[in-house]
Amino acid sequence: MQLEFLGTGAGVPGKFRNVSSTALKLLDECNSVWLFDVGEGTQQQILRSNLKPRKINKIFITHLHGDHIFGLPGLLSSRSFQGGNTPLTIYGPKGIKDFVQISLRVSQTKLSYRINYAEIDSTGLIYQDDKFSVYTEKLDHQIECFGYRVVESDHPGELLVDKLMADNVPSGPIYGKLKDGLTVELEDGRVINGKDYLGSAQKGRIVAVFGDTRANDNSYKLAKNADALVHESTFSKDEAKLARNYYHSTCVQAAQLAQKAEVGKLLLTHISARYTGNMAKRLENQARKIFNNTKVVKDFDVVDIPFNKK
Amino acid sequence: MQLEFLGTGAGVPGKFRNVSSTALKLLDECNSVWLFDVGEGTQQQILRSNLKPRKINKIFITHLHGDHIFGLPGLLSSRSFQGGNTPLTIYGPKGIKDFVQISLRVSQTKLSYRINYAEIDSTGLIYQDDKFSVYTEKLDHQIECFGYRVVESDHPGELLVDKLMADNVPSGPIYGKLKDGLTVELEDGRVINGKDYLGSAQKGRIVAVFGDTRANDNSYKLAKNADALVHESTFSKDEAKLARNYYHSTCVQAAQLAQKAEVGKLLLTHISARYTGNMAKRLENQARKIFNNTKVVKDFDVVDIPFNKK
Ligand SMILES: [Zn+2]
Ligand SMILES: [Zn+2]
Repeated sequence: MQLEFLGTGAGVPGKFRNVSSTALKLLDECNSVWLFDVGEGTQQQILRSNLKPRKINKIFITHLHGDHIFGLPGLLSSRSFQGGNTPLTIYGPKGIKDFVQISLRVSQTKLSYRINYAEIDSTGLIYQDDKFSVYTEKLDHQIECFGYRVVESDHPGELLVDKLMADNVPSGPIYGKLKDGLTVELEDGRVINGKDYLGSAQKGRIVAVFGDTRANDNSYKLAKNADALVHESTFSKDEAKLARNYYHSTCVQAAQLAQKAEVGKLLLTHISARYTGNMAKRLENQARKIFNNTKVVKDFDVVDIPFNKK
Repeated sequence: MQLEFLGTGAGVPGKFRNVSSTALKLLDECNSVWLFDVGEGTQQQILRSNLKPRKINKIFITHLHGDHIFGLPGLLSSRSFQGGNTPLTIYGPKGIKDFVQISLRVSQTKLSYRINYAEIDSTGLIYQDDKFSVYTEKLDHQIECFGYRVVESDHPGELLVDKLMADNVPSGPIYGKLKDGLTVELEDGRVINGKDYLGSAQKGRIVAVFGDTRANDNSYKLAKNADALVHESTFSKDEAKLARNYYHSTCVQAAQLAQKAEVGKLLLTHISARYTGNMAKRLENQARKIFNNTKVVKDFDVVDIPFNKK
């Protein structure tokens, strides 16, 4: 599980930061890539990464501002052109379906795969399979805007085959039952409990990816105990008033949330073009005074989300 | 007058060629830039050029395929963000207005300038001022597709002030009449003809910029005697059948048109990602056998269109 940052700028593309897009790489977990927002030029950024468009099977849109969606029609077209033929689901605010469908219709684009549209009409759990659950909450931006919380299911402990063999438990279909933690009776009359032959379970990881937002109460629900929190940082410490007026956050507000929600690491993105080079470092330093494990990400940064050792 | 190529690829962006966009720089002529097609990522290409978005006041769309229009909403938004406040006119096939308006509405983008939409309902002259006329004709592509011919007005000869002074013609309002080539009577009774006091007129330049097309009959009308012809070259010499099936041209078909229409130079664009490096050179060489003054353009190439010395 890795995050790859495809666009870390705010509002308009700059020379060094493209507009918003963040990839959650779930290659080991389910051979998929999930995208959060698709600003214009995302497909060109992907060309410069080693992501494969056909592996993208979920796209989560935080809000409909142009810097977060104008790359969507082009990405969808290229995914088809490059041989993608498996369905793709787009989650996002009401309106995203119209935008995509009209763009594809006007351009007479015929896709080689099906798009499922999942416009968000209620918050909470919006997706679940055996490996992942995704939750959403409303944030506080000029227009309807969502944050997403991806929760990996806990990994059950591995079956300790060496221990079974040492105890002369013959292999066979009962290994499946033991792996599920059940109690079984062996042919020699012994009764053993699967739980005694399982390694320790591995807690699933949690990643929260936010759209543009002011500091607000829903943020905590989404961010709580996340291994990684991807948060906007459009303004610096001293610009809280500007941030409020423009419905954005300061780096310090993001750090305060990270601290309160006890996240693993804070990844600051949506960096204004005013903050070039060392000035972006300053945002990082301001945030670190409050939450030390903070990083201002750049385009093409890849951040690993390891299992929690605790 | 210069052409700057912002995207010279075909269909989907590649690592070295972005999707279609061509700028006609009329900075000396009228302090304007006109864009032909706006594929996704055009605004990012402009960032890497020295073009100013606010100077773009006309955009000509050849057809509605995604690789020619998906960059339009983002470019329009950024032009506003970067202080553009003068009106802009978009010419193109029916449907372009819907696409732009819906994209701007969904994203709640408010522009600081007015857009005039000039959807093409009849071919021929579509724009004229004292310096330029623009003509359009239908080409032959899968969907409605236009080519554009920009004709600069002839520059009248300069008034030869030295010669007037040598002939003791006193300066004053009559200089205006003489400059217009009129006959005037001087106070001393002499009658002189303005035409005798004008330098030689300078023929205006002609630039033709085509959309995607098969070889077709309208092309000649648009290309005739152009100083520069910008033409697609999606396929190579031996792929005429593929070109026909996909509604495109080979490099040789473009060269045949250039020769027949007696253009000044042929600029080949819309180059497939299959033709990398030296293979693109091969397209050029194949075309040069028929029309020598041919160039396969690359992204960011700038081509000067000088006055014709003849
Ligand atoms: Zn934004
Ligand atoms: Zn094309």
